Amino acid sequence: MAFQAAESLSEQIARHIAEQIITGELVEGERIQELRIARDLNVSRGSVREALLILERSYLIEIYPRRGAIVAEMSVQQIKSLFDVSMLILGTMVQRTSETWRQSDGEMMNQLVLSLSEQVRAGDIEQFYDQIFVFLQKTHQMVNNAYLADMFENLLPALRRSYFLTLNTSKRELQEAFELFRHVIDAILIRKGDQAAVFMEDFCRHLRNLVLDSLARMKQIELAWAQRSRR
Amino acid sequence: MAFQAAESLSEQIARHIAEQIITGELVEGERIQELRIARDLNVSRGSVREALLILERSYLIEIYPRRGAIVAEMSVQQIKSLFDVSMLILGTMVQRTSETWRQSDGEMMNQLVLSLSEQVRAGDIEQFYDQIFVFLQKTHQMVNNAYLADMFENLLPALRRSYFLTLNTSKRELQEAFELFRHVIDAILIRKGDQAAVFMEDFCRHLRNLVLDSLARMKQIELAWAQRSRR
Repeated sequence: MAFQAAESLSEQIARHIAEQIITGELVEGERIQELRIARDLNVSRGSVREALLILERSYLIEIYPRRGAIVAEMSVQQIKSLFDVSMLILGTMVQRTSETWRQSDGEMMNQLVLSLSEQVRAGDIEQFYDQIFVFLQKTHQMVNNAYLADMFENLLPALRRSYFLTLNTSKRELQEAFELFRHVIDAILIRKGDQAAVFMEDFCRHLRNLVLDSLARMKQIELAWAQRSRR
Repeated sequence: MAFQAAESLSEQIARHIAEQIITGELVEGERIQELRIARDLNVSRGSVREALLILERSYLIEIYPRRGAIVAEMSVQQIKSLFDVSMLILGTMVQRTSETWRQSDGEMMNQLVLSLSEQVRAGDIEQFYDQIFVFLQKTHQMVNNAYLADMFENLLPALRRSYFLTLNTSKRELQEAFELFRHVIDAILIRKGDQAAVFMEDFCRHLRNLVLDSLARMKQIELAWAQRSRR
């Protein structure tokens, strides 16, 4: 595990556990064992408890008093709520960005579109979405609202966890996501904030539907396995 | 200090420190001394560190790696950002509430308006705003989005800290705030979600302006004191 120097120990531990949840190594409802993690990573139990508070903030786990921490569920309702709020936050972010971007930001956005089109050609779904969300993080200075920036940061791990489910969807879907996101950038570049917000919602809705499809397929497979093992 | 049973120890410590920040006992930029708090409350340093993470989540302090925790600033820019985001979150909450409230909620809202009008008569500014924000917390079930509810919970302490500044404003201002909030409730009751959101923004804007006025007055007094002590 290569830890970054600027992070505190508890942030490093949180990031380590977060990756396991995002990639599905730890599944919903699974108990997070404080003591085991402390032993495995050779850190104090206090540092693990701090890490759990950081993970709770980013909606990856739930902490119950006297019962410990559980990996947050991934249900239809939870995905709908997550994208509902994301549309609100991301819509507002691209709206503000439309008003405040400067020339160097414009160049960065054109670069992004080029890079995304390459990812579409290569069919690299994870890189494609990662790049979009890294770009949205970069809009923080343009948005100039620390609370909004923080809310997005808190949502990001749950969003990553959700689009990790879609990694085996078709190239056609990726092409469509690309077209939708290009509309967002185009609207920002001609400084049409309201349009950018609407297109951002379209983009989020498309991704949400892909996630919901993947989730349904996953639950079907789980059910089939459960039935098979009963036979 | 009467701690609630359902809260964890670190949540109790967080609430204790939060009250000191909200009421201005701890002021912006002030260092939060982990060791002193641990000694004063007779708790472990680990529990204090967990409490600080909870306080950071609600925007009352900022934690710097290897430098410790500082009470968050209260500047014009910070107040503007806070209310900017609050308008977005609260606007969405009352919009959803307009669509989903049931008869018992309607009675509760009528009760609230009666109770608020009494607080206006009594000139109890703190109770007035506290009641409004407690009501907004109660809309959580009607809103049915755990992320949105959580974002509001996180903003609430910073909002309370901001309206605590306005506690000596005039009764006329309180009357105006009441009229504005009654429009919100009226719109919810006739299920006009978009209107409710717009009125909520008006209410927030009014409160924000009061907070900004109070802040400016406070900074003037600080300046006068500083000049006086230089003489």
